[in-house]
Amino acid sequence: MALIVQKYGGTSVGSTERILAIAERIVRCRNEGNQVIVVVSAMGGETNRLAGLGNEISANPAAREMDVLLASGEQVSVALLSMALADLGCPGRSFLANQIRIFTDGNHQRARIQNIETEALDAAVAEGVVPVIAGFQGTDSTGSLTTLGRGGSDTTAVAIAVAMKADECQICTDVDGVYSADPRIVEDAKRLSSVTFEEMLELASLGSKILHPRSVEFAGKYNVALRVLSSFEDGPGTLITTETPTMEQPIVSGIAYARDEAKITMSGVPDIPGVASKILGPVGRTATEVDMIVQNTGADGLTDFTFTVKRQDFESTLKLLEPVRQSLGARELSGDNKIAKVSVVGVGMRSHAGVATRLFDALADENINIQMISTSEIRISVVVAERYLELAVRAIHDEFDLASSGTQPDT
Amino acid sequence: MALIVQKYGGTSVGSTERILAIAERIVRCRNEGNQVIVVVSAMGGETNRLAGLGNEISANPAAREMDVLLASGEQVSVALLSMALADLGCPGRSFLANQIRIFTDGNHQRARIQNIETEALDAAVAEGVVPVIAGFQGTDSTGSLTTLGRGGSDTTAVAIAVAMKADECQICTDVDGVYSADPRIVEDAKRLSSVTFEEMLELASLGSKILHPRSVEFAGKYNVALRVLSSFEDGPGTLITTETPTMEQPIVSGIAYARDEAKITMSGVPDIPGVASKILGPVGRTATEVDMIVQNTGADGLTDFTFTVKRQDFESTLKLLEPVRQSLGARELSGDNKIAKVSVVGVGMRSHAGVATRLFDALADENINIQMISTSEIRISVVVAERYLELAVRAIHDEFDLASSGTQPDT
Repeated sequence: MALIVQKYGGTSVGSTERILAIAERIVRCRNEGNQVIVVVSAMGGETNRLAGLGNEISANPAAREMDVLLASGEQVSVALLSMALADLGCPGRSFLANQIRIFTDGNHQRARIQNIETEALDAAVAEGVVPVIAGFQGTDSTGSLTTLGRGGSDTTAVAIAVAMKADECQICTDVDGVYSADPRIVEDAKRLSSVTFEEMLELASLGSKILHPRSVEFAGKYNVALRVLSSFEDGPGTLITTETPTMEQPIVSGIAYARDEAKITMSGVPDIPGVASKILGPVGRTATEVDMIVQNTGADGLTDFTFTVKRQDFESTLKLLEPVRQSLGARELSGDNKIAKVSVVGVGMRSHAGVATRLFDALADENINIQMISTSEIRISVVVAERYLELAVRAIHDEFDLASSGTQPDT
Repeated sequence: MALIVQKYGGTSVGSTERILAIAERIVRCRNEGNQVIVVVSAMGGETNRLAGLGNEISANPAAREMDVLLASGEQVSVALLSMALADLGCPGRSFLANQIRIFTDGNHQRARIQNIETEALDAAVAEGVVPVIAGFQGTDSTGSLTTLGRGGSDTTAVAIAVAMKADECQICTDVDGVYSADPRIVEDAKRLSSVTFEEMLELASLGSKILHPRSVEFAGKYNVALRVLSSFEDGPGTLITTETPTMEQPIVSGIAYARDEAKITMSGVPDIPGVASKILGPVGRTATEVDMIVQNTGADGLTDFTFTVKRQDFESTLKLLEPVRQSLGARELSGDNKIAKVSVVGVGMRSHAGVATRLFDALADENINIQMISTSEIRISVVVAERYLELAVRAIHDEFDLASSGTQPDT
């Protein structure tokens, strides 16, 4: 008998009809002889609605209370799903963070899980009960509610799987797996039967919204078998695994992109130690996420410093850096908020040279200018003008023949 | 420094604008030198919306999960009000039932409060914090959430006032006090500066929706000074007090009515012991509330048995009793769902004879037929055809001169 943790996101529990369908799916999994523990998010749109109420009250809502507010969203969905299970004769029982208990640090809105008590869950599972756990929320040492921030429910699911020594953690979502590229852009994109944690981490970080990098990292660290699959259709989905030596990896597994990007360049900066931190320090102290950072070797004691941020942070970051430019005596501060990032990911890159060349050639063949390049061991990312995004993704997908060889056949 | 518990109902926190206004009112009360503890309901309409979701999932939703679902409504309003207080520089802090903790029995949807721990509240008040407590909810001995049923938040407020030995429990609502009659029906109805617990209990039981009888009973039992006042306007409201010997009571304090009533009569019932329980027993085992019960002295060994129920329960009760009629061999089962109940209430009735006569005369003068009569020591209720309701209320209000003498001047 396998112990399976299933996580359902906001879209999967977005209406009472969907909740009823999910309940049937859980019962089916249980009838196949599995023990099931469920983690759910708030109903789709609910977290935004609640946050909107908070923002109507205050431009800067008290962090502790924002968590009390937001946590109510998951409370609603665990109650509804547990009712639906009970109606199907399946003993579902809702658990809130303080009932399990899921202890976190006290950093409201971005709390980290520290410890999960398993007594209540162990007892429930032994009784044959299906625990339905509110994702995203925790409780700190003072008994205050906390929330885990973005990707919180995925993280809860993985943490529960770790604590309960589950055989598999299934992230049930509105897509049926991880694809070689976004199927809305590349018609013949293929579902991958498996990817490695490292690849998934790169794909997630690069804008593939299926899984939050934090939960992938967590699952990789504790080696939890993680599977992405559809909430609504049957199918094996994509298994996220540790890399095994015998596994024949394709050179490139998938292509990811991020559309809402902007780049900011400070030109003619004195090329002396400490400049990078003088520029990025003030940005880092805001909530702005800095993604790619590129600094070229300078000439004449001057250099150009470029980095990318989310498009929404473009104006505020420019404004923030103008006084920095003046104090550094840099020549110019400029930017472009119509860019996109395209990345190829694959652990096969480690052992295959020439991936970068093929990528650059493919883009050159389409007359797409590359504005920035950044690489990791298993990833190459390029920044291009946003209007070339779809073209670039398709060109790369063709170049690496992902429609056929990019996928592993299901076994 | 007085310790005041203020309870705000759903209408008072029905929008973020109203919550901001309530926050200012709380700060004002605090700035006047009081220590304030706040109890709030869910935002107006929210409990119904949540219950509606539950009913979409199941015709008979699991009771434990319905409480988890409903309790989320109060969680939202305590969070929003605490944020609003913080924005005004007032240290508000939300408390859910399991954070205080408010222990109840395990009867979901109609739990009774058993014990309130005051440590967390004592500490908060000592710190100068304004606790903002989720009304309506509790936690049972297993740690499951419970809800208190109708009038739950009023009951929470009174229980907190008792546990914290508060000087006054203020029920802040959308009316500015208790009136001699419904001002929508009687133009010159007067606000009462005080009523006794017994009078308030009768008024509440009889359809005056300002306070739930359960909370009045609770406050009376523990002798908590209870005040009904407006959430939106300044004013002394109505104080609900124990009767003092020196207090000159008017004969009649107020007139209450209940519109959505229906009566059911079983005629020609054998007049033998045990008949009443044979008829009311099956009704009592459903959720139907039986209100007035009248049985006349019979003739020829037969009697007529009449009682009233809420109009919504009329059809189902008739259906339920048809087999009972047959098994008793009673002649006929009939009913009328177009009736209303009008009641006069006043502790002064105890020492003044003739109230009933004046009441009956006043109705006779208007040609209003009285269908049923029921009395208590401080109340007389009559059932009349619903179309005469307003006329009856105005006639009685005039008869007892409540527009002038019915009110106590504010002191």
